[in-house]
Amino acid sequence: MNPTSTSPRLAAAAALTGASRRSEIAPFIVMDVMERAARIEAAGGHVIHMEVGQPAASAPAAAREAARRALDHGRIGYTTALGLPSLRARIARHYGETYGVDLDPARVVVTTGSSAGFLFAFLALFEPGDRVAIANPGYPPYRHILTALGCEPVLIETDAASRWVITPEALIEAHRKTPLKGVLVASPANPTGTMMRPEALAELIRTAEELGIRFISDEIYHGLDYAFPASTAAAVSPNATIIHSFSKYFCMTGWRVGWMVMPEGLVRAVERLQQNLMISVPTLSQVAAEAAFDGAAEMEAVKHGYEVNRLILTEGLPKVGLPEFLPVDGAFYLYADVSHFTDDSAAFARRLLDEALVAATPGVDFDPHRGHHYLRLSYAGAADEMRQAVNRIGDFLRKG
Amino acid sequence: MNPTSTSPRLAAAAALTGASRRSEIAPFIVMDVMERAARIEAAGGHVIHMEVGQPAASAPAAAREAARRALDHGRIGYTTALGLPSLRARIARHYGETYGVDLDPARVVVTTGSSAGFLFAFLALFEPGDRVAIANPGYPPYRHILTALGCEPVLIETDAASRWVITPEALIEAHRKTPLKGVLVASPANPTGTMMRPEALAELIRTAEELGIRFISDEIYHGLDYAFPASTAAAVSPNATIIHSFSKYFCMTGWRVGWMVMPEGLVRAVERLQQNLMISVPTLSQVAAEAAFDGAAEMEAVKHGYEVNRLILTEGLPKVGLPEFLPVDGAFYLYADVSHFTDDSAAFARRLLDEALVAATPGVDFDPHRGHHYLRLSYAGAADEMRQAVNRIGDFLRKG
Repeated sequence: MNPTSTSPRLAAAAALTGASRRSEIAPFIVMDVMERAARIEAAGGHVIHMEVGQPAASAPAAAREAARRALDHGRIGYTTALGLPSLRARIARHYGETYGVDLDPARVVVTTGSSAGFLFAFLALFEPGDRVAIANPGYPPYRHILTALGCEPVLIETDAASRWVITPEALIEAHRKTPLKGVLVASPANPTGTMMRPEALAELIRTAEELGIRFISDEIYHGLDYAFPASTAAAVSPNATIIHSFSKYFCMTGWRVGWMVMPEGLVRAVERLQQNLMISVPTLSQVAAEAAFDGAAEMEAVKHGYEVNRLILTEGLPKVGLPEFLPVDGAFYLYADVSHFTDDSAAFARRLLDEALVAATPGVDFDPHRGHHYLRLSYAGAADEMRQAVNRIGDFLRKG
Repeated sequence: MNPTSTSPRLAAAAALTGASRRSEIAPFIVMDVMERAARIEAAGGHVIHMEVGQPAASAPAAAREAARRALDHGRIGYTTALGLPSLRARIARHYGETYGVDLDPARVVVTTGSSAGFLFAFLALFEPGDRVAIANPGYPPYRHILTALGCEPVLIETDAASRWVITPEALIEAHRKTPLKGVLVASPANPTGTMMRPEALAELIRTAEELGIRFISDEIYHGLDYAFPASTAAAVSPNATIIHSFSKYFCMTGWRVGWMVMPEGLVRAVERLQQNLMISVPTLSQVAAEAAFDGAAEMEAVKHGYEVNRLILTEGLPKVGLPEFLPVDGAFYLYADVSHFTDDSAAFARRLLDEALVAATPGVDFDPHRGHHYLRLSYAGAADEMRQAVNRIGDFLRKG
């Protein structure tokens, strides 16, 4: 026997220590920014955080109070897999109040944040190997979850000509090359903060459905629309899958509670997935979420703060030398073109943090092709900080 | 054109409405029992619930108090993907206190219940197509989650001769037929309530690792051991993956918080999965979970209640005509052999509920092969109810 051949025992040991190929997902580069920012702060520096994708405000008082009451009243047990019936009914009512859409509560499924919504949607709608179109730039977990579940994400490039959204023509072209089974869009979008006009959304849904392509609408940033009102896919087609969350408008990130609106015939599949993969959604979070709808006045004030921040940035940044960014329609993101200053947005973000104490997310987290020319700035913080950020960015760009 | 041929538009519409094959998971039959029980109760009947897999008690007061404090103190934001560092450290300390195992907190990953633990473990350890052995009877989501993620569950039959656990010989035999990539065991187990003796667990882990088979130990019922102390896979091998939860011993089902102990080299893979598939674990639940460890005295009292219930059943049931059940070692389940009375445990459970007002879970939920001869009785309720249940079951069996 060749002495250099691997013994069965060594081979067995090696088989125990590696991660699967499907779990080899790219990490977020923004995590490096956050760690670096934390080190600077530990050393006494005052960092302005524009890298984080979560509101600075708390959940509505009504939501927190409901959670407190639930804590005082007995066991926090499992709920049914589809979610508390009263919460599902309240969410359905929200569609009537907000969009004038009459929605059957039976189509609403409560989820552990929008994250579980993506997991269930991809598992229920697609087989392994199915191709699903997403916009580039876009939210990185879209492609990472699809890949982990054996689907193939197909990046459709967006640009200024298409107002940074997937057009019917682009969808048809991608489908012609190799058939698509699904398309996922977000409006307002992360990282761009750009929205689809109502007619653009409706036309894309109609095109997708004519081609037999399932439509998923990520509406997590609904409620945070400044340029024009966001429209829901639920108003266009009963076959669209909608993913939403209490994280953004209702400032409930750490509660991990969201919802889906499913085509009627797919609710049962998602119910079985929830029963088996999650059992149920955190109960306190469901109770708080239902009460959150009573806190709309509070949340509108928070939204007004974002609108002020948005104006500070859209008016201030061009004056200090950063004039190019995508349409700042909604969410709380401004996606800035920094190609005049760098070909390496990660290095640029590092320097901006080290030298100007402004933390931002390099575009490479969202766009593997052109992200080295972009930075995402989150304006979910305080107005004073936004003003300071404009000044710091201006000083930084002047120094070169 | 043939008028009966399907138009492209109709074909496209059909493609939009069906669920994927991989989401076609069997529903829990116990759900029917629960719905039927609810109807009886709505009509004024007093049902004794022995079908549910969750404690009747609340989370420790310390846990609830910690959640209240967190609600009073600002935003409930995301945590880091691996979980609150203080909670990870506290869990690691628990291994020292409970098992005398020195565990690096860096190997602890906080999860959204054990459910997310299975999801991450299967994704990080296995590729699509990999075969993973599980015991039959067993917890149905094991095979359903594996199937949804493209893996092949391999049921290994257990019986009285093997004390209802997977033996090294059975594992070797299954691996010889077609190679296995993993094996998952639970001790105490659901639905059997049976435990692996420490030497049986250690021997199985050693056998698996010699064969290059990854070992996953579901330790969710640890703490609820009556026959002898449960032993942890962490004491046997640094390559074992452990899945645990605050749901059972700490009575925190609806909080959806658990943890994994990962082999050192796989922590990063699970961190990436958490970042992308979940972002983070519900924050209030993490805060409460850390404080739950201070409520051990309360939880020991609850456990003592289960021990009393266990005695009522193990002494009472044989006297009323139900003498055969598996070793009642831990958890809060008694798995009864009802083959003398029926060949259809689902129908038997229905009659037991309708005629004796005792809700139990038919074995077919847990064992596709022999489950029609078994019933799972949960003894997580009150002692008085257990005594009544014994009487009701006795009357029911006498009437035939």
